[in-house]
Amino acid sequence: MREKRQGMISPLDKIKAQVREISAYTLAPIETRIKINQNENPFGMPAEIKDEVLRRAAEIDWARYPDFVPTELLERLAEHTGWRADGVMAGNGSNEMIQSVVNAVVEKGVRVALPEPTFSVYQQVVRVAGGEIVPVPLNPELTFNIPRLASKIVTSKANLAIICSPNNPTGCTISKRDLVSLLRSSEGLIVVDQAYQEFGGEDFVPLLKDHQNLVILRTFSKAMAMGGLRVGYCLASPELIREFSKAKMPYSLNFFSMLAAQVALDNMDLLQPLIERIMTERTRLFSALQEIEGLTLFQSAANFFIARSAIPVKTVFDELVSHDILVRDVSKAPLLDDCLRISVGTPHENDRLIDALRGIFQREMQ
Amino acid sequence: MREKRQGMISPLDKIKAQVREISAYTLAPIETRIKINQNENPFGMPAEIKDEVLRRAAEIDWARYPDFVPTELLERLAEHTGWRADGVMAGNGSNEMIQSVVNAVVEKGVRVALPEPTFSVYQQVVRVAGGEIVPVPLNPELTFNIPRLASKIVTSKANLAIICSPNNPTGCTISKRDLVSLLRSSEGLIVVDQAYQEFGGEDFVPLLKDHQNLVILRTFSKAMAMGGLRVGYCLASPELIREFSKAKMPYSLNFFSMLAAQVALDNMDLLQPLIERIMTERTRLFSALQEIEGLTLFQSAANFFIARSAIPVKTVFDELVSHDILVRDVSKAPLLDDCLRISVGTPHENDRLIDALRGIFQREMQ
Repeated sequence: MREKRQGMISPLDKIKAQVREISAYTLAPIETRIKINQNENPFGMPAEIKDEVLRRAAEIDWARYPDFVPTELLERLAEHTGWRADGVMAGNGSNEMIQSVVNAVVEKGVRVALPEPTFSVYQQVVRVAGGEIVPVPLNPELTFNIPRLASKIVTSKANLAIICSPNNPTGCTISKRDLVSLLRSSEGLIVVDQAYQEFGGEDFVPLLKDHQNLVILRTFSKAMAMGGLRVGYCLASPELIREFSKAKMPYSLNFFSMLAAQVALDNMDLLQPLIERIMTERTRLFSALQEIEGLTLFQSAANFFIARSAIPVKTVFDELVSHDILVRDVSKAPLLDDCLRISVGTPHENDRLIDALRGIFQREMQ
Repeated sequence: MREKRQGMISPLDKIKAQVREISAYTLAPIETRIKINQNENPFGMPAEIKDEVLRRAAEIDWARYPDFVPTELLERLAEHTGWRADGVMAGNGSNEMIQSVVNAVVEKGVRVALPEPTFSVYQQVVRVAGGEIVPVPLNPELTFNIPRLASKIVTSKANLAIICSPNNPTGCTISKRDLVSLLRSSEGLIVVDQAYQEFGGEDFVPLLKDHQNLVILRTFSKAMAMGGLRVGYCLASPELIREFSKAKMPYSLNFFSMLAAQVALDNMDLLQPLIERIMTERTRLFSALQEIEGLTLFQSAANFFIARSAIPVKTVFDELVSHDILVRDVSKAPLLDDCLRISVGTPHENDRLIDALRGIFQREMQ
């Protein structure tokens, strides 16, 4: 008490050291007409789906809590993925799925293997939980270093490894064969975040049956055009799902997002063509940008790719903003010093990007 | 590896012991016409508000992520509560606020003082984080035991105490005077969850300025008729909010719920009369039920109250279900062996409940 009166003890001292050490993440909002920085579906949600969701939402009593277990959605997801409904958990974006899995497994001293660079939320959640990150750098050509990953998981006795495949921000994938070998050699859980699976990479759901340590994450935020609505899900053995659910907040999926997910699943015939157009555009954009002197592109199975720039990233980024185009500056990530991440946009947006980058590099490379 | 092949090591062994010890929470769905078990606003969201939200939602691109920081909502909440915008965090229901605060503070060995009985999510989140709960039972008349709470926080060196006021499930409140004395005597953080504040109890926001260890939680799920949409917020010093935000998932508030919260705040003139009707009904329902021989009621500042039953709780619960009325059986909670929790419904629903309980107790008490 004496110390307190002297102002020696601050409420901030009660925050865990590992949380205080994290630098607060801020994202200064930049408004541009063309926004290809968050790997969103550039075509947006089809109007028919929106109309149906809004029509049904009007009839629902918003004051009532959603179902404790969203049984109908879980059953639809089971059908959609070919897995069992009691092995599915759904919630507030795949972020909440990551958080639930990590909070069920990680405490002080628990090691978590993470390829590097990868999606930053993994690291954030593991650090808050007190875990120790075992980083496994990608190969110089930005592909997974599987032998190193396998040996690091075993030698560090990692209880958890999280592999994003296709990987954000590089777009590289792990093959089914490599994943099986990791699942066999590791005693820990292997989480594969397949947020971008609809755009490429193998489907790992058939592996769930024989591999009790496999956990698959999926999302409606990317291909499914629901980034604004936050629905993610997790597939694993019913025994693991039961434990992860205890670390998840009850009622975390609001009725509207749940409804939108169901209506979207009912209308895959409207969404699938958009996903295919994104993949066609990916090929076209990749080829066009590859021709630009000063840009080096890396193959990607997702709806974005890494471009390494011979001129300073900041110059390219700022020039693109002046052309009303927002990409992601990833130059602070390991191995990506001189790189940008570019999401695939609509055909028109991609044309504008190609023109802008051609102009910038023609001028700057002289 | 040898052990693994022999089936000795299960992936479940990687789940933290404290998570495995939690019993999986299941809520068997019971469908009744009258649902007064979750403290929801029985009048629902006014149609004008729903229409406006749906109209605006139709114009939004659902594929786009929501704002990284929901600046507009935070400013509106600051205005609504009389606190500063940089001292506000908003997210996916007050559950996510509780989780963020707990995850920023609690790790193995950290003590958290909790009155008992109270809202069960506090305990769940603290246990997952590895914390040690210091329970402080309510007084036999179901009011907070303030001297005991004060001394327990100090002697246990609790880094955190969570006080729900009005308390779920009992409806008791802490006074401003008692709260100030706790804030002064405790070196830890004091979280006051004011989920039911619109129905009664003092406003503690004016205390934030002088008490750096005070954290206030609020929600749109109860009085604000948005239980289905999950919006909660947290008020504290900007320094604490900055730390709590690091433990919160980015983009956790979807665009639709955010929009609904904003439109609701714009239309308090439509919501306030509903809140007042609930309070009027609370008085009427309380008086009517108090007359029933065999029921003992406890005063509450919230939109629910505890009824102690002279006949077995299960009998009353089941009979009410047969009358198409669902209340909450809280008889497993400490001190509430023979109790039900009853939410205030619409006038018609309350009439039905009064009639049903009169009939049940008249028959059973003979």
